[in-house]
Amino acid sequence: MYRSHTCGALRMQDVNQQVTLAGWVQTIRKFGAITFIDLRDRYGITQLLLGEELNSQLTDQPLGREYVLQATGKVTERSNKNSQIDTGDIEVAVTSFTILNKSAVPPFTIQDDTDGGDDIRMKYRFLDLRRNAVKKNLELRYAVNRSARNYLHQQGFMDIETPFLIKSTPEGARDFVVPSRMNAGQFYALPQSPQTFKQLLMVSGYDRYYQIVKCFRDEDLRADRQPEFTQIDCEMAFVEQEDILQMFEQLIKQIFKDVKQIDYSDLVERISWEEAMWTYGNDKPDIRFNMKLANYKFPLHTFPEKKETLSNSLLSSGATGFAVFDQAETIIGFAAAGCSEYTRKQIDELTEWVKRPQIGMQGMVYIKCNLDGTFKSSVDKFFGEESLQKIAAATGAQPGDLVLVLAGKEEKTRKAASELRLEMGKRLGLRKENEFKLLWVLDFPLFEYAEEENRWVARHHPFTAPKPDHIAVMIDNDPEIKDAAKYLEHPYAGIKANAYDMVLNGNEIGGGSIRIFQRPLQEKMFAALGMTEAEALHKFGFLLGAFEYGAPPHGGIAFGFDRLCSILGGSESIRDFIAFPKNNSGRDVMLDAPGTIDQHQLDELHIQLNKE
Amino acid sequence: MYRSHTCGALRMQDVNQQVTLAGWVQTIRKFGAITFIDLRDRYGITQLLLGEELNSQLTDQPLGREYVLQATGKVTERSNKNSQIDTGDIEVAVTSFTILNKSAVPPFTIQDDTDGGDDIRMKYRFLDLRRNAVKKNLELRYAVNRSARNYLHQQGFMDIETPFLIKSTPEGARDFVVPSRMNAGQFYALPQSPQTFKQLLMVSGYDRYYQIVKCFRDEDLRADRQPEFTQIDCEMAFVEQEDILQMFEQLIKQIFKDVKQIDYSDLVERISWEEAMWTYGNDKPDIRFNMKLANYKFPLHTFPEKKETLSNSLLSSGATGFAVFDQAETIIGFAAAGCSEYTRKQIDELTEWVKRPQIGMQGMVYIKCNLDGTFKSSVDKFFGEESLQKIAAATGAQPGDLVLVLAGKEEKTRKAASELRLEMGKRLGLRKENEFKLLWVLDFPLFEYAEEENRWVARHHPFTAPKPDHIAVMIDNDPEIKDAAKYLEHPYAGIKANAYDMVLNGNEIGGGSIRIFQRPLQEKMFAALGMTEAEALHKFGFLLGAFEYGAPPHGGIAFGFDRLCSILGGSESIRDFIAFPKNNSGRDVMLDAPGTIDQHQLDELHIQLNKE
Repeated sequence: MYRSHTCGALRMQDVNQQVTLAGWVQTIRKFGAITFIDLRDRYGITQLLLGEELNSQLTDQPLGREYVLQATGKVTERSNKNSQIDTGDIEVAVTSFTILNKSAVPPFTIQDDTDGGDDIRMKYRFLDLRRNAVKKNLELRYAVNRSARNYLHQQGFMDIETPFLIKSTPEGARDFVVPSRMNAGQFYALPQSPQTFKQLLMVSGYDRYYQIVKCFRDEDLRADRQPEFTQIDCEMAFVEQEDILQMFEQLIKQIFKDVKQIDYSDLVERISWEEAMWTYGNDKPDIRFNMKLANYKFPLHTFPEKKETLSNSLLSSGATGFAVFDQAETIIGFAAAGCSEYTRKQIDELTEWVKRPQIGMQGMVYIKCNLDGTFKSSVDKFFGEESLQKIAAATGAQPGDLVLVLAGKEEKTRKAASELRLEMGKRLGLRKENEFKLLWVLDFPLFEYAEEENRWVARHHPFTAPKPDHIAVMIDNDPEIKDAAKYLEHPYAGIKANAYDMVLNGNEIGGGSIRIFQRPLQEKMFAALGMTEAEALHKFGFLLGAFEYGAPPHGGIAFGFDRLCSILGGSESIRDFIAFPKNNSGRDVMLDAPGTIDQHQLDELHIQLNKE
Repeated sequence: MYRSHTCGALRMQDVNQQVTLAGWVQTIRKFGAITFIDLRDRYGITQLLLGEELNSQLTDQPLGREYVLQATGKVTERSNKNSQIDTGDIEVAVTSFTILNKSAVPPFTIQDDTDGGDDIRMKYRFLDLRRNAVKKNLELRYAVNRSARNYLHQQGFMDIETPFLIKSTPEGARDFVVPSRMNAGQFYALPQSPQTFKQLLMVSGYDRYYQIVKCFRDEDLRADRQPEFTQIDCEMAFVEQEDILQMFEQLIKQIFKDVKQIDYSDLVERISWEEAMWTYGNDKPDIRFNMKLANYKFPLHTFPEKKETLSNSLLSSGATGFAVFDQAETIIGFAAAGCSEYTRKQIDELTEWVKRPQIGMQGMVYIKCNLDGTFKSSVDKFFGEESLQKIAAATGAQPGDLVLVLAGKEEKTRKAASELRLEMGKRLGLRKENEFKLLWVLDFPLFEYAEEENRWVARHHPFTAPKPDHIAVMIDNDPEIKDAAKYLEHPYAGIKANAYDMVLNGNEIGGGSIRIFQRPLQEKMFAALGMTEAEALHKFGFLLGAFEYGAPPHGGIAFGFDRLCSILGGSESIRDFIAFPKNNSGRDVMLDAPGTIDQHQLDELHIQLNKE
């Protein structure tokens, strides 16, 4: 062992002890004949004092930043204590040292606030990982990993490894594939998730399975997606939705406790998908703050259960005289608390914000709810005081609030309202980094309509079961959509899934479902997704086969481990929580991967490159 | 939840409780109007009693083996108790039941001793996994996983995930590669191990790293190799070999304790590679039994330090008159205890055994050390009683033992002697399944000679450091082998590695080394292996670069997790300890993978198949 203690270990009680430390030179400060060195390792920083007697060695072997140093000496009390660090009461009076390795001058200094920019950081990731900021992220990641494993173990879950070289069954995202040398012309695929394997394990009787496992999706990388990512993947047999919700909200609460020392004793709220869309404009609402949406006008087929609301709305008639509202499919507003005194400039800036191409609205209507009870709006011409009062009241606005209203096509307007709500929440400081709010979103539609192909696609995945009440609707109806324009009237449009998403602070951190476990229903599902019988057998014959030999009812969930860590760590970027991430072109710039392979390798794999 | 208890939970104290169980029908026995069902799940088996009142339901809904059943009733004491199972004192008097799912007749019965043969087992792996024998293996695997993680956590190791989509740098085994869609003509490789990443993590200061991680090698699969396999992968910084040996023998001892309830308090023996070859004929000796080899004759360059032994040997002269011995390069023998009364038939059979092509010897000499102190041998013609006594004495033979002697070319004879020793150990019952003996094998040669290319290859891998004393030999000499015939005289032939293997019961379960951490030495290593500077930079530039920025001394080890589990489970086959293994052609017969992919996928990946 090159050291007797780490650089984070020594305290006052160690004074007078003879110690040997090893680590990296963080800083060197010379005061006359005396040299101070801050020596750093994973555990902390200890100040070394090199006296006059080492001067000649220091001249022969000059030290530099990031040199690897081994130093022996006596622990002494510091005259000038540093209360910022745990070892700040002591220093080591060095009697001898050895340079274990030199270092070139690093391209950026190893400090919290200097990282040299993203490209340099990634190229020199091995140096970036030395920075305290990054180290803390990886430590948090390990703590989450450990906490999850402990909880799941206590609950009787077994970690069972599933294979990485599997069969390509693209459905949704693209597979990464691996040419087989021993089976010419054939390919393995890397798993997008262990979905079918964990279901097979349920069929095999391993009724509580988990894995923290890499998954692979060959998608065009939007910001903050990685081609390889990690899931906490879980499955249970003989359970209903309620069992899963309870088991896994407890998992996240345990992680809060172990990792963040937060005792999350609140009930985890639950909301239906429809209600989430209605109230927040999206299916992963941030409920750290209120600001609920008022739906003044909307296409009735989208929210059939809200008929009452529509008929009560002042703005739904299309005869207000304000063309923007009268021609809009959807009108949505909400109240920004305490913003009634926004200046013209502030309101103009907000209006520009919703007109940006990412949001794409034509404009924004505002109503100032003045403290004196009067109203001032951008549509005073069209609406009298009483109408303004009614419009504002629908949002729950109080005197002093500012009501913002958007109008246009349903999908775009709802999305814009959601985005504007989040933006106002941010500006008003309501999205607090250290507040954590969990939410279950339930009752998703089972199917989505794919316009280009005029067919159904699975909203979650093809193994998700419909609500028990809706199984008959699925079995008894032909999935074919005869009239594309009226797809919403097809019985399949109303089928709800036994699926659930867990949302944390406006991010989907996990999702899952109760699965289909009967062969006929699974076959119907494949047919509904436009697969022929032969295709279904070719791709998923093993699963259909397994369902014939006593498959139990089962369901599960998968958490996005990278995302969960980044939220717990208070960061927007999952890359900061991955030791060796890839960039947006899927490249590892440190390794310079992917790269070419030689002809011999290609030949052995029975493939050749396309000349283009 | 479909159940109130598992099928392994109920005991006498639960009598009179109302319970609901869910599981699989193991057996159905009818006695008149009464039906007994053994209901099975992961936790055990509980007997259900279905009385007369359920007869009509049983007629309408007949049950079969492997049906999934939910049953509610009252726990009652059994009149006819079964002490073989934990729930054997009670049964459940069923008042109602529901068939959750039917089952076709399985292709083999789900019992310990019926598996339908290997092909059927693998095709229906989801049923095979229901068998208790297989379930126990996966449970053991999870227990080893859990034990290893707990120990490493307590020792301050951090689980850090390394990437799966990396760069192809084939050196030794073939890489599996993954064509990149976004980088036309380029490929990722799947890691053969996280070797370079864990070294980078040491450079980054994460001085205790571990991972239980999948690795990939595209090799022709000998029996009991898998294209994807799992390692317990570990690395430490600021350590010397001794630190690693102690840390990781303690890991294995902890696993023994947690998983097998074995308190392994013995010192772990250590042996040099040379001594292992000398004494046992191979580098992973089974030391559960003694039977050490006597080396009567051997090529001196192979064991230069054994010169003394050679000059003392009666058989080394080449003038004994027995041509087989006189012409042999190597003569090795050992004593099989208590076998002096082997019959002619038994000895003939052993002789045939060593003549099999897998062993390939021409014959075998025996000397019976009779209980009366006389000797009887197959070479009585050439050796008198006194000579026979000397030959036998060299093996440590006692009266009643049988000395077996092999002669021929060094490599083949030594291997044959090793195999014969293991075979005799097995026949004599000395390789006890429940005895575990650990051994460190140390001081491996750093290089091996590759005859075809007339160059050095790394015995372990290119990152292994030479013994500190041998660094100068490596730096100061030109690696080129000018005279192939005299390669053993090249200074590199004598360089020993700072490497170590952990051997358990004759199996290598782990191996590792202290690593090179200085760029110049690493460059010399790459050059020694025949890499040009450009090649080394192309393949490992990131590592050489990292070594310039303060790389600490470090080393590590990797354990073959599948193998470790199989030995602890008392099995020869690692496949029995993998949930979804591949066969010897690298195929998953359940999935039918690998498979073809469609033209569109190929096009997107910028590749095409070779027409052959």
